Amino acid sequence: MEPTKSEIQAWFEGLQDRICTALEEADGQGKFREDHWQRPGGGGGRSRVIEGRVIEKGGVNFSAVEGALPEKIGRALQLPVGSAFFASGVSIVLHSHSPHLPIIHMNVRYFEIPAQTAEAPSIWWFGGGIDLTPHYVVPADAQRFHQHLKMVCDRHHQDFYPKFKKWADDYFYLRHRKETRGVGGIFFDRMQSNDYPLDKRQLFQFVQDVGDAFAPIYTQLMAERADLPFSEREKNWQLHRRGRYVEFNLVWDRGTKFGLDTDGRTESILMSMPPTAKWTYAFEVEPNSAEATTLDHLKKEIDWVGITDIAR
Amino acid sequence: MEPTKSEIQAWFEGLQDRICTALEEADGQGKFREDHWQRPGGGGGRSRVIEGRVIEKGGVNFSAVEGALPEKIGRALQLPVGSAFFASGVSIVLHSHSPHLPIIHMNVRYFEIPAQTAEAPSIWWFGGGIDLTPHYVVPADAQRFHQHLKMVCDRHHQDFYPKFKKWADDYFYLRHRKETRGVGGIFFDRMQSNDYPLDKRQLFQFVQDVGDAFAPIYTQLMAERADLPFSEREKNWQLHRRGRYVEFNLVWDRGTKFGLDTDGRTESILMSMPPTAKWTYAFEVEPNSAEATTLDHLKKEIDWVGITDIAR
Repeated sequence: MEPTKSEIQAWFEGLQDRICTALEEADGQGKFREDHWQRPGGGGGRSRVIEGRVIEKGGVNFSAVEGALPEKIGRALQLPVGSAFFASGVSIVLHSHSPHLPIIHMNVRYFEIPAQTAEAPSIWWFGGGIDLTPHYVVPADAQRFHQHLKMVCDRHHQDFYPKFKKWADDYFYLRHRKETRGVGGIFFDRMQSNDYPLDKRQLFQFVQDVGDAFAPIYTQLMAERADLPFSEREKNWQLHRRGRYVEFNLVWDRGTKFGLDTDGRTESILMSMPPTAKWTYAFEVEPNSAEATTLDHLKKEIDWVGITDIAR
Repeated sequence: MEPTKSEIQAWFEGLQDRICTALEEADGQGKFREDHWQRPGGGGGRSRVIEGRVIEKGGVNFSAVEGALPEKIGRALQLPVGSAFFASGVSIVLHSHSPHLPIIHMNVRYFEIPAQTAEAPSIWWFGGGIDLTPHYVVPADAQRFHQHLKMVCDRHHQDFYPKFKKWADDYFYLRHRKETRGVGGIFFDRMQSNDYPLDKRQLFQFVQDVGDAFAPIYTQLMAERADLPFSEREKNWQLHRRGRYVEFNLVWDRGTKFGLDTDGRTESILMSMPPTAKWTYAFEVEPNSAEATTLDHLKKEIDWVGITDIAR
């Protein structure tokens, strides 16, 4: 049977719960604060934010909104303005205290315009992605991250990983800096049955697998990297990398722009902002330093799964 | 005689020099670092950045660019793509160490599309503005600031101050926060002779007056406020206000978006970023605190010149 919007919504709510529990356990100290909010046009959300021992600032948001399609969204999506719509999803951004623990982002979402008449079928799609933004790129970690995502993708369709890996490279890109946000990951949007030999149930299972991949991926990194010692220089570099994260989210990220443009709940949208950030004019890194190597790795089209010289 | 583009450009270069000299003198310690840059399509600029005793991070940029009108700009300005164009101006953003010294921004600019044929006249306009972003709003300072700008405006046309004050209120506005960037100032764009009984020379004189107002306004504030003692709480509030400044510049500021969209020199465009900034989820101020009073003042349509209860 096709998954209904209420089944999808309930699964997203459960995912938020499970991820928050896993993160609290891995952090060992921080507890999520929860804010319920209502959208004036219909629906609302459950924002959860943590400030912990390992995670300096992290947000795990669930929302399920509905109502009449706002004009700006209708135009952007080329859908009839004013139709009834439903959208639900989970969005996560975590900023760590340690410069050795990457920033991570995950989103899974579902969008639907219900059938207007018996003849006009409903319009629906899934979207989502996970991407990793290390302050210092560790190629072996980037490889393991991509291997994990490839394994998840390959279980559902052999085209998914190569297609969604490239999509992430193109999406999480700071054009004005000519650098990627991090080591990428996967990104997909408007995923429908027309495009793949998979029905709605099967596509939902893929999205569920992506959502469920998040907690094991990040809690392993937390365990391995949160307690490594770091220097003032490394902390300073982290703050500058966070500045780039701010630039991506406010200048290029379509989700953020859309939310702000359409009067979403600002504090929930901007939970992705780092706790602190720095900008230094024409900041320069020392040649051959760990910082220079990181910049060298912030490029599209690195085949992280396939790299053999892991120390590159 | 009508001012030529080379006269205007030369005046802007001189303005940059004079402002940098005045700021170095007022800072007493910092010296501007200068970077010359070339624009691939034609022209270039002279970026100057200071890190001083009073000014933590400040940029005073001059540029004069020319060439074929880029497609994105042509479309946005509703001008023929590919025409020859010329644009020159001075842009300033200063971030102070002290939370008691406001952030300030100033811009003056000239744009021209030279006459294509003997029959088609050239298209040209001036634009610019000054606005003040106190971390803590001091009504008497805001009043003096607006009185100064009104005096400058009134020397040229009685409509200028009320029109450009309102324009600044509307322009320097964070729609997603429902707050103004600061106490406003003046903003004007596409200023042509058609709109006012003033010829090009007279409009240029107004723009010169605006440019010349900058140094006295800010160096007086520096002298009065830079050395006031401040607490950790006040510093923390400053970092959060800087976060809002980042949000305005990256989400709403048309100049910044345009520059980044059209492959301008990123480090010159983003010299406006604060040295450090903070974001705290759902940051709350104490009722009746200085921070709460400041938020209360970040509204459009406050008649700063006319307020009588200066302690409000």
